[in-house]
Amino acid sequence: MYSYVINLQCPKCNKTYEKQREQHLCVCGSPLLVQYDLDRVKTEWSKEQLLQEPLSLWRYHPLLPVEHPSQVVTMGEGMTPLLPMEQYGAEIGLSRLLMKDDGLLPTGSFKARGAAVGVSMAKALNITELAMPTNGNAGAAWAQYSARAGIKTHIIMPLDAPEITRKEVVAAGGNLSLIDGVISDAGKVVAQKVKQEGFYDVSTLKEPYRIEGKKTMGLELCEQLNWELPDVILYPTGGGVGLIGIYKAIQELFQIGWVKGEMPRLVAVQAEGCAPIVDAFHAGASESVFHEGSETAAFGINVPKAIGDFLVLNALYQSKGCAIAISDETLLEEQKRVAQLEGTFLCPEGAATFAAAKELARQSWIQPDETVVCLNTGMGIKYPESIDVHAEEVAKV
Amino acid sequence: MYSYVINLQCPKCNKTYEKQREQHLCVCGSPLLVQYDLDRVKTEWSKEQLLQEPLSLWRYHPLLPVEHPSQVVTMGEGMTPLLPMEQYGAEIGLSRLLMKDDGLLPTGSFKARGAAVGVSMAKALNITELAMPTNGNAGAAWAQYSARAGIKTHIIMPLDAPEITRKEVVAAGGNLSLIDGVISDAGKVVAQKVKQEGFYDVSTLKEPYRIEGKKTMGLELCEQLNWELPDVILYPTGGGVGLIGIYKAIQELFQIGWVKGEMPRLVAVQAEGCAPIVDAFHAGASESVFHEGSETAAFGINVPKAIGDFLVLNALYQSKGCAIAISDETLLEEQKRVAQLEGTFLCPEGAATFAAAKELARQSWIQPDETVVCLNTGMGIKYPESIDVHAEEVAKV
Repeated sequence: MYSYVINLQCPKCNKTYEKQREQHLCVCGSPLLVQYDLDRVKTEWSKEQLLQEPLSLWRYHPLLPVEHPSQVVTMGEGMTPLLPMEQYGAEIGLSRLLMKDDGLLPTGSFKARGAAVGVSMAKALNITELAMPTNGNAGAAWAQYSARAGIKTHIIMPLDAPEITRKEVVAAGGNLSLIDGVISDAGKVVAQKVKQEGFYDVSTLKEPYRIEGKKTMGLELCEQLNWELPDVILYPTGGGVGLIGIYKAIQELFQIGWVKGEMPRLVAVQAEGCAPIVDAFHAGASESVFHEGSETAAFGINVPKAIGDFLVLNALYQSKGCAIAISDETLLEEQKRVAQLEGTFLCPEGAATFAAAKELARQSWIQPDETVVCLNTGMGIKYPESIDVHAEEVAKV
Repeated sequence: MYSYVINLQCPKCNKTYEKQREQHLCVCGSPLLVQYDLDRVKTEWSKEQLLQEPLSLWRYHPLLPVEHPSQVVTMGEGMTPLLPMEQYGAEIGLSRLLMKDDGLLPTGSFKARGAAVGVSMAKALNITELAMPTNGNAGAAWAQYSARAGIKTHIIMPLDAPEITRKEVVAAGGNLSLIDGVISDAGKVVAQKVKQEGFYDVSTLKEPYRIEGKKTMGLELCEQLNWELPDVILYPTGGGVGLIGIYKAIQELFQIGWVKGEMPRLVAVQAEGCAPIVDAFHAGASESVFHEGSETAAFGINVPKAIGDFLVLNALYQSKGCAIAISDETLLEEQKRVAQLEGTFLCPEGAATFAAAKELARQSWIQPDETVVCLNTGMGIKYPESIDVHAEEVAKV
């Protein structure tokens, strides 16, 4: 069996939906989660078999929704490095600080994971044309994977989204529109287009498979730690799909018996200029409130109200995690500090997780010898404006 | 044994040099090549052992010069995807067209391979400060890996080099200078600085270990083809280190008995605006002539005279390969075509190899059913200026 998918289920009202059909939100308005026959996976799949699989996220095909290898649309994504960050760790007082570097994916960001699985499913469902709002990187990834699958794309992004992501959409032949607003404004236009034109809606969590791709971050990092769970995982949280995905991944690994012990404490890292999850967490709320007038240099996490906020908050509460907001000034400083000490040029969102680790270590919320994983969600080169260059011009000899 | 390195040898006059000492060019002016005890490697290393190794270029440590794992400076580089390019292949009449995507490396280019091995060796040799000329990507990679190793860098690049690479150097704390000229002009300034300040010179092939890092492109692609050799490998050729490296890799694999059959035909792809190797190849010469007034949008291969030109030409002649020049207009067109059909956004240099494959297929120099590997040497996102964006602005709803 290539996949052990059973169906889709609503985490709010438990209603189930058929697999292999176009599905979006539950009738109750909640995103849907993919269910697998985990008892069979436990019996029929082994860590030894995993070693024979390709070096991409597709090695986890039993826990992915794609049912036939021929439906896989891939550019070789996955199995990104889990790197020790010893120098920076020493500076902030953490002896086991690691980074999962999801910049090393096609399209230069972690969005490739969701796009690879999402586009593969769209292809399996014979979709020919899709639409989505994006803060840039997701649109770039979906446009590129869709091109590979022969699917037309309609991408709407804010004028302030990283300019390079526009180039990626256009290079892949995507239909790009810009909007003077935030991702929620783009989302409203997409909703209208979907209604009018019948495009397949792949807005965050309105399409149930992106999360399955993001889940592989959690699967991979457990494998790379030789199936020992880390103590803390820090994740830059906009829509929060990756955090929900990592939580789901580790739950599934518990159920198939591949990991034991405590669920890692999940940390949602946001920017001070857009911190609805942090506010909700501190209020002990189960949902977030729309953050008016949001703004941050970490553009990928400028999401004023995430449709899956209740799933993110649930993962934080269940894992005894927390949520923390970082100022733009601090995250841009840490971006430089990490590059200088470790050589790794992170995206601002990724840098925010290091600033958060530093602050949580200072507060002793993280202990010095705990195993801590920061998720870098993209390459720094996608954000050239985050670095100022002063260089001397030399004369020829 | 972690490494089977013996010594360094001059390919021109055969003089040998000690390993584990700072070495640059031979007294005769030629670059030096690293020698390994291949008979022992043949006896003591196996393909089965390789499967237990990490998923990075360091899996090939017996054929790399670093003698202790503790000396390895790594950001998880290597084992980049070897992707089928079916749609584009069908369009140009090649049924087995593959791309080795070396954009998926830290720093977004294949230069990470040479920097990882070169910086590891520099660290092993207790180097504290190094200098180099660069067309951008190599400087970015060496600055970043050096930061990780705690080595200071002095990088000189032409004003026209990709702007993002400046940002990478500066982010990593490198000392960046710009010059109104080509890489050869930068090289002269570096030579002067090296003499005056005693910096470690890591100019192309004046440092003997970069080529060993590049060699892993060849090792990996053979492993990924299950040790079946491809028929043709196309490589965008500036300094030509990768082409020399791939040739050396396959020679070593022949000697340890891991591959059999015909040496793949190696193709040096250059830009019409800078084609010294192509000119030399057509003249049947063993060295190239400095290309005056060179210019191309594929900036990484704007190298008017490569110090290893005789090694590149020898590899072309020995492998029954060829050299071919592509116009900027054509390579930028193919960059878009590949993105539209395959979803992969290549650097202009990588796109040139596809344009070359198309032309060589048209000429029947490549047969329709041959296995053909194009090397993409970097991510398209490092060259945003290669794509023009026209996007409609939509109103909020």
